[in-house]
Order: sequence, then C-alpha cells, then structure tokens
Amino acid sequence: MLVIKQQLYQKNMAKKLTTRADNYSAWYNEIVAGADLAEHSAVRGCMVIKPYGFAIWEKMRDQLDHMFKETGHQNAYFPLFVPKSLFEAEEKNAEGFAKECAVVTHYRLKTDPNDSSKLVVDPNAKLEEELIVRPTSEAIIWNTYRGWIESYRDLPILINQWANVVRWEMRTRLFLRTAEFLWQEGHTAHATKAEALEESEKMVNVYSEFAQNWMAMPVIMGSKSESERFAGADETFTIEALMQDGKALQAGTSHFLGQNFAKAFDVQFTNKEGKKELVWATSWGVSTRLMGALIMTHSDDLGLVLPPKLAPIQVVIVPIYKGEEQLEAIRSHIAPLIDSLKSAGVSVKFDDDDTKKPGWKFAEHELKGVPLRVAIGNRDLQNGTVEIARRDLNTKETIEFTDAFSTITTRLEEIQESLFNRALDFCKENITEVVTFEEFKSVLDKKGGFILTHWDGTGETEEAIKKETNATIRCIPFDEAPLKGKCVYSGAESNQRVIFAKAY
Amino acid sequence: MLVIKQQLYQKNMAKKLTTRADNYSAWYNEIVAGADLAEHSAVRGCMVIKPYGFAIWEKMRDQLDHMFKETGHQNAYFPLFVPKSLFEAEEKNAEGFAKECAVVTHYRLKTDPNDSSKLVVDPNAKLEEELIVRPTSEAIIWNTYRGWIESYRDLPILINQWANVVRWEMRTRLFLRTAEFLWQEGHTAHATKAEALEESEKMVNVYSEFAQNWMAMPVIMGSKSESERFAGADETFTIEALMQDGKALQAGTSHFLGQNFAKAFDVQFTNKEGKKELVWATSWGVSTRLMGALIMTHSDDLGLVLPPKLAPIQVVIVPIYKGEEQLEAIRSHIAPLIDSLKSAGVSVKFDDDDTKKPGWKFAEHELKGVPLRVAIGNRDLQNGTVEIARRDLNTKETIEFTDAFSTITTRLEEIQESLFNRALDFCKENITEVVTFEEFKSVLDKKGGFILTHWDGTGETEEAIKKETNATIRCIPFDEAPLKGKCVYSGAESNQRVIFAKAY
Repeated sequence: MLVIKQQLYQKNMAKKLTTRADNYSAWYNEIVAGADLAEHSAVRGCMVIKPYGFAIWEKMRDQLDHMFKETGHQNAYFPLFVPKSLFEAEEKNAEGFAKECAVVTHYRLKTDPNDSSKLVVDPNAKLEEELIVRPTSEAIIWNTYRGWIESYRDLPILINQWANVVRWEMRTRLFLRTAEFLWQEGHTAHATKAEALEESEKMVNVYSEFAQNWMAMPVIMGSKSESERFAGADETFTIEALMQDGKALQAGTSHFLGQNFAKAFDVQFTNKEGKKELVWATSWGVSTRLMGALIMTHSDDLGLVLPPKLAPIQVVIVPIYKGEEQLEAIRSHIAPLIDSLKSAGVSVKFDDDDTKKPGWKFAEHELKGVPLRVAIGNRDLQNGTVEIARRDLNTKETIEFTDAFSTITTRLEEIQESLFNRALDFCKENITEVVTFEEFKSVLDKKGGFILTHWDGTGETEEAIKKETNATIRCIPFDEAPLKGKCVYSGAESNQRVIFAKAY
Repeated sequence: MLVIKQQLYQKNMAKKLTTRADNYSAWYNEIVAGADLAEHSAVRGCMVIKPYGFAIWEKMRDQLDHMFKETGHQNAYFPLFVPKSLFEAEEKNAEGFAKECAVVTHYRLKTDPNDSSKLVVDPNAKLEEELIVRPTSEAIIWNTYRGWIESYRDLPILINQWANVVRWEMRTRLFLRTAEFLWQEGHTAHATKAEALEESEKMVNVYSEFAQNWMAMPVIMGSKSESERFAGADETFTIEALMQDGKALQAGTSHFLGQNFAKAFDVQFTNKEGKKELVWATSWGVSTRLMGALIMTHSDDLGLVLPPKLAPIQVVIVPIYKGEEQLEAIRSHIAPLIDSLKSAGVSVKFDDDDTKKPGWKFAEHELKGVPLRVAIGNRDLQNGTVEIARRDLNTKETIEFTDAFSTITTRLEEIQESLFNRALDFCKENITEVVTFEEFKSVLDKKGGFILTHWDGTGETEEAIKKETNATIRCIPFDEAPLKGKCVYSGAESNQRVIFAKAY
C-alpha cells in the first residue's frame, strides 16, 4: 500500500490544525498538506497533485466528462504549444494573456563547454518562431477549425479537451492559483449566434448542476460585467461560490465568443443559401481550482470534509481489536457488509493496518474527510452493534449491525444533502442587500459575503469601487428581475442589481 | 452531431486508399486522415488528435488505468516543467534527452514597439533558470520523492501519471513519432532491488496482456540490450510488435532504474535496522504511439480495422429505406435490439442520417473500422431477416432477425479473437531463424520481420550490424531458453539468441 509522508500526518495529528477563525489562510494550507492533497514543487508556482488529491480530481473529472458527453460533446486533443503568430491573431485575447506566458525559445541543450557535468541551452537551436505554452487554446483550436469547416453541414462542432495550461502567475496558492493547472476547455463552433448563445448558457448550467449536485456547493449564476469578461469574449457567464471566509470564488466560466475568433482566423462556412458567413464560437472551462473551492466550502477545524459523491473513500471501517484472533473475528463478521456495500457502488476501506492505533486512524480519516467512519470492536460483536460516525456533523451513533447497510447508505445520501443545505444557508445568510456606499463598505469590512446592490452599469464606477474597497462585480445574476434604483456609488439610475464581493 | 470534414471522407470515398503493397507509408497516412484519427497542426511535429481518434485512445487509456489500479497503483500529477539543474542531475538520463528538449526561457510577452498589433518576447522577463518541458518525468518526480520518503514504512510508492511530454524529434509521423505526445508514466520507489525488479517485470507483463487481450496485437516480451536501454536505466524490458510491412514497433517499455535516480537526488530511507539506504526505482510507459501500432496491426486496403474491445462504435446499424414511413417501421422494429445490445454494454450507432446514401455510409464505416455493420431494409422486415457484415473479413451473412442479438454478440467476440489469431499467425510466419550474416541480410531485404539469431553480446557487433543493415536488437526474448551458438556477425561464442529487426 502507498503510505506517503506518514511523518507529516503524525505531526499534524500531534498539533491541531490552525482554526479558521485564527488564520483562514493557514488553515487552508494545513488542510491541503495534512490531507495529502497537493504540495509545492521545485518549479515556481507549479504544484504536485498527490494521489489522494488526484483521486478527488478524478471523480470530478469523470462526472464532468460524463455530463459533457451527455450534452453531445466529444473529447479531442490539441497541441500544448501555440506559435506566437497565431497567439497574437485575436488581439484582445492575446493582450489578456501576454503578460503571463511561458515562452519556448530553444529546442536543444548541449554540454556546458566550461563544465561537462552541466547543460546549457544550445544557441544554435533557437526556434525561428517562439512557441507559447498554451494559457488557453482558442488560438490553436480556431486555427485548426478553419480546416474542418466548409459548409453548414460541418456545424456544430462540439469538442472538449482535458489538458494542462500555464499562466505565469506571480502569487500562487495550491489549487486556487498556480502557474500550471489542469482543466477542461470546451470549444464549440456554430452556424448561428442564437445557437452559440444557447450553448454557452447550457454549459454554465451544466457547471451549476455539477457544483450543486456533486460538490454540494451552491453557486450564483450570472453574466460578468464587461471588464471581468474573458479576453476575447462578447459575453462571459459564470458560477460564483462563497467561501467560509466571506470571499467569492469564481468556479467556472462559459464564454460566448461571438465571431471574434472566426474573424481572427478566417473561419467561414457556406450557409444553406450558398453564402459565406463567419462561424460563431463558445468556450467554457473549469479547472483544478474547483479543488480549492471544494476544500473551502465544507471543511472544518478538524480537517477536510468531502461530499460523499466525490470522496475517494466513502466509508472507512476501523476494527478495534486485541490480537489476531479478534481481528479475524471482526473481519469475517464484517465481510458480507463490505461486499454488499461494494456491490451497491459504495467505496469502502477496511483499515486493518496493525502499525497504527484506532485513535490515530480516527484522526487521520477525519483529517482526510472520509464521510462515514464505522468502528467495530469485540463488544460490538457480542452485542450485535456497530458505531457509525458522520464526518460532516462529527456525531456518533451506535446501531444494530443488521441495520448497518441501510443506515450507511442512507447516511451517505443525508450527508450529501446536508452539506449542500448547510452551505446554502451560509450563502443565503451572506447575501446582503445594501443601498448606500457606507453600508457597502461596512458590510464588506465586518461581514463580507455577497453584496447585492444597484450599479450604474459603467466601467468607471466599477473601477472606482474596486479601487476603494477591493470588491469586484462577481456577476449580474440570471435570477435577478430588473429593478429600478440608484447606483450605490454614483447615485445614477440603475436597472438591475448586481453581486459585489471580494474574491479569490 | 459532429460532422468533421465531410468533404474529406467524400474525397477518400471517391478515390480508393493507396494499397499497402503500393506504398505502405502513404496507406498509413491516408487511414489516419480518412478515418479522422489525427492531423498535423500548425506547430512543427505536434498533432491534433481528432474526436474519433481520441475516442479510441480513451478506451485504451481507461483499460490501462484500470489495470494499473488493479495492480495497486494510484494516479498523481507532477509539473510540466523541469528546472535545468534538476534535469541534469542524473547524467545519463540528461545526456539521453538533452538533444530533444523544448526550453522555456521567458515568462512574458510584450507589445512589439515597432508594430502594436504584434507581440515580442519581453527581454526583462528572462527566467533565472531555464525550464525544460518534460521529455519524461524521472527528474522532477525523484526530486519530489526525496521529501516523501524517510523510512521503509513509506515504501513502496506506486504512482502513475497520465500526461503530455515533448521530445523535439526532427522527423515526425502522426502517432508514431511526434514532438508532443500523450502517455502514462509509472514511477515507483522500493526498499529492495528484488521488489523493484519484480515491479518492472510485472508492468511489462501488464503491457503484454493489454496489447494481446485488448489491442489483439501479439508481442514479444524481452530485455533490451545495453545500447537500447532507456537513458538512466539498469535494465529495460519491452514489448515488441510486428507491423504488416515487416518492421518492428516498440510498443511499451518498463525500466528497472536501480538506485541511479536515488543517487542523483539523494533519496534515502531508514531500513528496519535503522540504517540509511538508497531507494530502488522503476519507471514504465506507453504512449499514443500505441495508436499507430493498432492501426498498422489490423487495418487493410479498405481502411481502419479495429478490435471490438477498443472500437468507439462496435456495431453500426444502417437502415435501407425509402421515405419516412419505411424508416419509422425499421426504427421501431430495431429499437428493442438496440436496447438489449446497449444493456449488454455493446456500443451501437443507428445511422439514420438522411443526407447520406447507404453506400456512402457503408464505405464510411468501413474506412473507420466499425467491427460489425447491420443493414436492414424493407424486404428484411417482411422476411424477418437482417444482414450482418464483418469488417475484419469483409464478409456478409443474412440471418434471422430473432437471432440478431446472439449473433452480434458472438461475432464481436469472434472478431476480437480472429484479429489476434491472424496477427499472431503473421507474426509467427515472420520470425525467421538465421545462422549466417548472408541469410540475415537476405531475410531482412526480402522478407523483413523478426530475425532470431545468435549475438556475441557486444555493443561493437550490435553497432556494426546496425550500420550495415539498419536492423537493431529489438529484444532478448524472455521465452528463449539459453542456447550455445556462434554470433551471426562476429562468429564469437553466444549463449542466447536475440531478435533483430528494422524498427519504427
């Protein structure tokens, strides 16, 4: 079995986690390290995703992949590199990403003439044209689509790619902001504006459904203001989640790209009437950033809390025993339960590691967010009972062993629902409607969370508020009805309220 | 629905594929293009894997991933970049890959001062230390493992990663040799030499099982000679397949790395006796190159041939009809069959695209290697029959409709087996035992294939044979018993025969 950094667990076991109240940021970092999710690497800003963290990401990826396929998309793979001349073709997009591009300039190393044990870049192997490590793939993909699209019969193209991308961020945090991250990027091509708009709205809804039903994370769906849009998009839709420290986290975005990329890469199709038209585009993506959102939405001062649908281990069974004989008795007693749980699709771990004490195991599984812990000892065998502990509430119950299967499966469903409801209550309690800018600043300082207020629709006001408070417009919510009012900052007329917050 | 490059299919439909006999290399390229598997990109040597090609790769990946997990491995993710100082730490490995490294030297672009629509590399954003785009990940991973391993209790570490890697190849061919490719790389760490050796042997066996049972591709398993080993390995195990043109293809390798990387990165553990020891390592990988092997093993002059276990569409049903009414009659007649096939895990496509004629569809599905084609028309409805065509044999049979389910599922199994047997016969017929170097050269010229012969075990002989014939030692087969003889080239004493071939 893989046992990584036992030492580190033990250290964390010995000293408790920093609490959220004491230092939210330290708490987050300690969970990421202690639950063995990820760590920093020798490469500035790039992370190592450790097996337990990757197992959670795999569950997210597999479910998203399933949902993309259910909505008619297929996977493909496009190059890691984008030649500079293609990268700069769509000007807004290029401008948006130029400052954070890793650039490949050479294709060979050679032995250092001054030290034969070292290598140096071979100056004779300079590329004629520099290659950009993709920060996003619109450029390389739309350059490819030009060759795939001739007629309306070739449309729509509904493609997704799972890939790594690089954005040279100066300040990085594991999962939340890293120079390299893993993501999926959908890139679709359509014959009409209406169809492309429908696609971009459909996909933000898929993200919302995934966030709420799988991550148990409530989100507010809406449109971005112009200044917060994806570089090169005519419209960006977003799902915004609220973390426990009152800061917003943008969890997924879907962009209506208009004909911007079709123009930049000259992608036209012949319509039914035989006339040439530019193709309409969308792109949409979520990334390993979702791991950060998942951690911060549910976890507590004891460690990670995971919704059962995304937990690599849903149930851990810890035998409490003295000697091999008692262990064997527990093992054979519990075997049919394990089998029936596995058959029902529940992932179960029987933790019979005899180098660790039960108390150590309890703390470890708590830290790693295993939703349900089952403890069974000699006395339980005699009494026909078993103890079940819920990670979300940190409560225990002793039940009849004969009820174990139904109780476990029921509790898993309850935990999934209860985590969502708890997060939803938190989110609702932390949407504050304000009218004056004094209130705005006071809420932001004292309470945090989402602020729902009127905005005059100008970039100037948005910028001024951001400068003064650090809060940005997270979105113009889909489900807010138009409402007349006065802008919280300028006092000018406003037709709709928007959500402001400080954000990750 | 995604319909890519309809035009290209139609072009390919109109003109037949180049035959294998006429030009094997052109035939391969035309299948890759015509079956919509992959294409060249705007980036030198990098490919675009198209949705149909990627769907095949996904099936391969998912099955391999399952087999890795069954053998106790977990997935993780390590950075794309390797700092140059880490890259050069294991000297043999560094030397082996230095000449084909893409190097990141800068992390920012800026507007070209001479043309505001262009970007240039910002000279002020030069990295202090260059980053190598990983050609393989031993260096970054072993540098990470140093932090994970303290005691024998931390071992073994059994990790796999699915990733993209870059090797700047000068001559590239889709799937077979590309500058960027997708692969998996297992990296394991062990307390003893015996355990690491066992792991590397286990994984080459996993590859062999996958190749034979899933790809229906027979392989010869064996060890590489010293000169053909992975740079930095003490031993390389390989599976070698034989393509229809008589050339060998190395389909997967598993390396026993000794303590080389532990030495280079100072990775030690405390053993049970409390003493420090260096850790033992393995690594093993297969890549999108397997796609090339799959294509070349089974395909024929009509197009791609796929083993059912890896076919994205296993059965295509083509209705032959005039008018909506006949189509509806066929649709409702065939619906229960489709349902029962899908329930049995068979992937079925009902091709009711009314913009294409049946003949066009037949040719398209042939080109794309769909294992079974079911055709059903009005007359079949009346007669209670259905026509089934096997892609592997290009044969047709008319059967009772009531037998369709059992015949289809049986035929799929038969095709899987028959493809393997056909390839195995071909492989066996093309292993030639030779004694003299004249025979060696003559077989290589006239017949090709694997040549089984004595070798004196020296690098000089190996090099001389390679220089004179272009043939290399593919492997020292596991299942060849020791046998005394004379080296085919030098006449010196030899204890075992080895496999020579020209190779991809």
